[in-house]
Amino acid sequence: MSFFEKHKDSLEKAIQATKERTFYAHHPEHPGAYSAESAEKGKIDFENQLGNAFTQLLQTGNTATAGDEVSPYTSNALAISYPTAPTSTLIANAKAAQEQWRKTTPNERAGILIESLERVKSRYFEIAYATMHTTGQSFVMSFQASGPHAADRAMETIAMAYAELTRYPAQKTWVKPMGKFAITLDKNFTPVPKGIGLVIGCSTFPTWNTVPGLYADLMTGNSVIVKPHPLSVLPIAVFVAEIQKVLTEAGYDANTVQLAVDSSNHLITKELAESPAVKLIDYTGGNAFGDYIEALPNKTTFTEKAGVNSVIIDSVRDLREVMRNLAFSVSLYSGQMCTAPQNFFIPETGIKTTDNETIDYDTAVELLKNEVSALVLNPKMGAGTLGAIQNPNTLKRAQDAVNLGASVVLAPLDVKDAVFPDSRIITPTILAVDATQTDIYQQELFGPIVVVVKTRDTQHSVALARQMAEQHGAITCAAYTTNPDTKAYITDQMNQAFAPVSFNLTGFIWVNQHAAFSDFHVTGGNPAGNASFTDPAYVNKRFVWVGNRAIL
Amino acid sequence: MSFFEKHKDSLEKAIQATKERTFYAHHPEHPGAYSAESAEKGKIDFENQLGNAFTQLLQTGNTATAGDEVSPYTSNALAISYPTAPTSTLIANAKAAQEQWRKTTPNERAGILIESLERVKSRYFEIAYATMHTTGQSFVMSFQASGPHAADRAMETIAMAYAELTRYPAQKTWVKPMGKFAITLDKNFTPVPKGIGLVIGCSTFPTWNTVPGLYADLMTGNSVIVKPHPLSVLPIAVFVAEIQKVLTEAGYDANTVQLAVDSSNHLITKELAESPAVKLIDYTGGNAFGDYIEALPNKTTFTEKAGVNSVIIDSVRDLREVMRNLAFSVSLYSGQMCTAPQNFFIPETGIKTTDNETIDYDTAVELLKNEVSALVLNPKMGAGTLGAIQNPNTLKRAQDAVNLGASVVLAPLDVKDAVFPDSRIITPTILAVDATQTDIYQQELFGPIVVVVKTRDTQHSVALARQMAEQHGAITCAAYTTNPDTKAYITDQMNQAFAPVSFNLTGFIWVNQHAAFSDFHVTGGNPAGNASFTDPAYVNKRFVWVGNRAIL
Repeated sequence: MSFFEKHKDSLEKAIQATKERTFYAHHPEHPGAYSAESAEKGKIDFENQLGNAFTQLLQTGNTATAGDEVSPYTSNALAISYPTAPTSTLIANAKAAQEQWRKTTPNERAGILIESLERVKSRYFEIAYATMHTTGQSFVMSFQASGPHAADRAMETIAMAYAELTRYPAQKTWVKPMGKFAITLDKNFTPVPKGIGLVIGCSTFPTWNTVPGLYADLMTGNSVIVKPHPLSVLPIAVFVAEIQKVLTEAGYDANTVQLAVDSSNHLITKELAESPAVKLIDYTGGNAFGDYIEALPNKTTFTEKAGVNSVIIDSVRDLREVMRNLAFSVSLYSGQMCTAPQNFFIPETGIKTTDNETIDYDTAVELLKNEVSALVLNPKMGAGTLGAIQNPNTLKRAQDAVNLGASVVLAPLDVKDAVFPDSRIITPTILAVDATQTDIYQQELFGPIVVVVKTRDTQHSVALARQMAEQHGAITCAAYTTNPDTKAYITDQMNQAFAPVSFNLTGFIWVNQHAAFSDFHVTGGNPAGNASFTDPAYVNKRFVWVGNRAIL
Repeated sequence: MSFFEKHKDSLEKAIQATKERTFYAHHPEHPGAYSAESAEKGKIDFENQLGNAFTQLLQTGNTATAGDEVSPYTSNALAISYPTAPTSTLIANAKAAQEQWRKTTPNERAGILIESLERVKSRYFEIAYATMHTTGQSFVMSFQASGPHAADRAMETIAMAYAELTRYPAQKTWVKPMGKFAITLDKNFTPVPKGIGLVIGCSTFPTWNTVPGLYADLMTGNSVIVKPHPLSVLPIAVFVAEIQKVLTEAGYDANTVQLAVDSSNHLITKELAESPAVKLIDYTGGNAFGDYIEALPNKTTFTEKAGVNSVIIDSVRDLREVMRNLAFSVSLYSGQMCTAPQNFFIPETGIKTTDNETIDYDTAVELLKNEVSALVLNPKMGAGTLGAIQNPNTLKRAQDAVNLGASVVLAPLDVKDAVFPDSRIITPTILAVDATQTDIYQQELFGPIVVVVKTRDTQHSVALARQMAEQHGAITCAAYTTNPDTKAYITDQMNQAFAPVSFNLTGFIWVNQHAAFSDFHVTGGNPAGNASFTDPAYVNKRFVWVGNRAIL
């Protein structure tokens, strides 16, 4: 049985889900759904990898090694060395592999790629530890984000690409009636891959933000070079190794996907990006480099850059429930998610409740402070929600936030990680400003920093949130209102800045979460990025439809 | 009955055709299929317009007039004056109209736009005369290209956009099982228009190359400013006027589409293109300006630029039939179609036939010369096929082609247009070069200039044709071979440069013709342009999917 036959049913389910935007999970998200053996083996495999060479890659032409990873939980180097090759070798390998890969059918590609996801599934615990000790995510988030959630996003691009690649008949007999006779042409319609894809990873979500572009490129017939962030290599290295193994088993060149590890001392991203052979670039990271990527001539680019996400609070049922939900959103992985809220717009006139009461501005801010404090100081929840700070610069920014010139509602609290006493941990700082203090809040303050902005009224809140999205980008917006007209107004205004709005989230659902198969991620319409996975353009910009005709 | 109800069946048929790539014509292409009254009225309407103000536009804010059109057939000015408005007025009008138009549904838009095509249908003869006396196309080509073929291309974009806009459920109840409970979210998925579209027309195909972008922008909810070439305004002015009338009848702002006429002395294209409010730009024309358009930051661009189209002759059934077909392709509208072949690659070893004969190189070139001469000297066919030369610069280039340094196979012949003795007419020049004379043939020689390139063998021909497509762009490629392996080889090689190949065309079908609903036009993959109408990306890059979520 071919890999395609083996995974045909899964593919069809995934295609259906992307169409209907219904709930669908290709792999279960809970660690408890996986075997205890798998959990134990993952831990051992990760520990055995520490201090050793990563030898699972099947790519060729390696000449040296690199490895800079350091655990945010222990500050110890992981001391894993990855093989490296000159840029020219990576490009030559990718070109050679492309010659073969571009000729494969969508069925062959889908079979191989879904099989690789099944192989990765057995390594989710190992990937979780790898993610934890490179990104600073908690164990559960590391498991979910880098494992099943990433695989779901990959599966989603496979499904979307398959649907687009098979959208037109491969062969068509075209008959044009001309009165007394007819013209008959034999036509075929071929999706031609654009060329070599470069996928540039980030340090905080090494697989979740990388696999969509990686699988989309492969699925559309392009060979790929994955350039991970030098501080977050191991999680995506496991994915690449598993894809290479399946490629080899199926008789294809392992170099169809290559891992291009570099070191912080000698970054090779620009060399790769500027190679004329590289036609597609996927990028997740900061704005300056993202703008450079988008401006490269003759490349098709897919970027996810920084954004400033807003919370608009107009009216509520229960403000405590609202603030509890938002406290979790800003604390989760210490605000290092691209979807984390930063600016809270609250009217100086206060917040109306469904009991016809008005909660004044100061009380509202106090409620937020209390809920954040209660969460992070909770010994069972605090450290596990915050995780650790990936980058020392982010820690510095968080430590210095009290000096930004805003009034400090909540300074960092004394919270320790019981398991990792040397963890790079800091609790969220809450600042409060007037709407006029634009120099403070009209910028991304990446990390655990929240700014409450006092506005005249909700219309003012919305205007500022929209302006922020238009000028600085936004990936999400959380809004709370019990008034249907206000809900429609906020939707219309924020959607014009291409920011999706999540209304009235309380309980076990948070604005930070974008579900594969249903929620688009990044809008593609504002400065936060020019891509959205997985909308149709995310896959059909990676190949070109070419129609040939012949008189038979 | 709403416009949508009225045209629902047509829309469904068109959607089906774009899916199946089968033969479909929304409007019949033959002038004979339209009433004699319609023909007569069109002639009178055109003649009455000459020397007068064009008063049919319903757009507001006009402050002056412009009008530079000159007939290539008579060298007389058409002396039509069009209203003009300052760029700032055009942008302000478009913004205001957009506020209303963006809120319309795909059904409303499709109804209005298809209705506009039905209104234009009654004016095809008028548009034909307008096209003839601005572009120099023959009457029949003017009728077909600017009338039914253009309307088919518009209908195709309406159909494709409708399919994409309705691809996802507008509303979805999303239920995520969480073990003992479930999370329920009310989701909606909204295609949000990107903003104001600018559609920049060319002088040779004023409607065929303009209406796809125009209708695609409108269909996806964007207001549009059409900036025609100052020498070819009237044909597209009729389209815009008819759309404005239908918009007004349906209760919408006529400024949803505006005609922005300028004069050769004061072009306003850059002012419009650089306006921050303009988010989408469609452009047909030369490379230098096209490259400028593509490089504008923060714009989504759709370009059709110059290309150099190749003919590869390997082996044939009947070389005379082949050369007769190609003679028509190079003579039709004097090589001023973007799809016209320029470089003929013929091996020095000659061309094999199915009779196991070999026709030597010189004989092959002689056959081409004879067929072109016979066609253009045919009193019933010659002038009607050639039409007139749109631009005096093109005439100059054609006159000077004999001095390019190639050996001259056929110099311009003495052919007159019997009806228009002052017509800007010239017959094709055929040059012959060695493959090494790259400075002559490795460039676009727009107009009636053909270069026969002597190659070592077919593999050499293919290598040169591919290189030309990769470096200079190509919209078509014609190839002749009786060998299935060679056919596969040519397909594979040219498709890698994203050039579609038409094989063995003889009789009443020519490489120049791209049929709406079946053939993609421009590839989007090589320097000839970054767009292809109408592939899915041609419409779905004009809006952004935004998904909102709410707890109910």
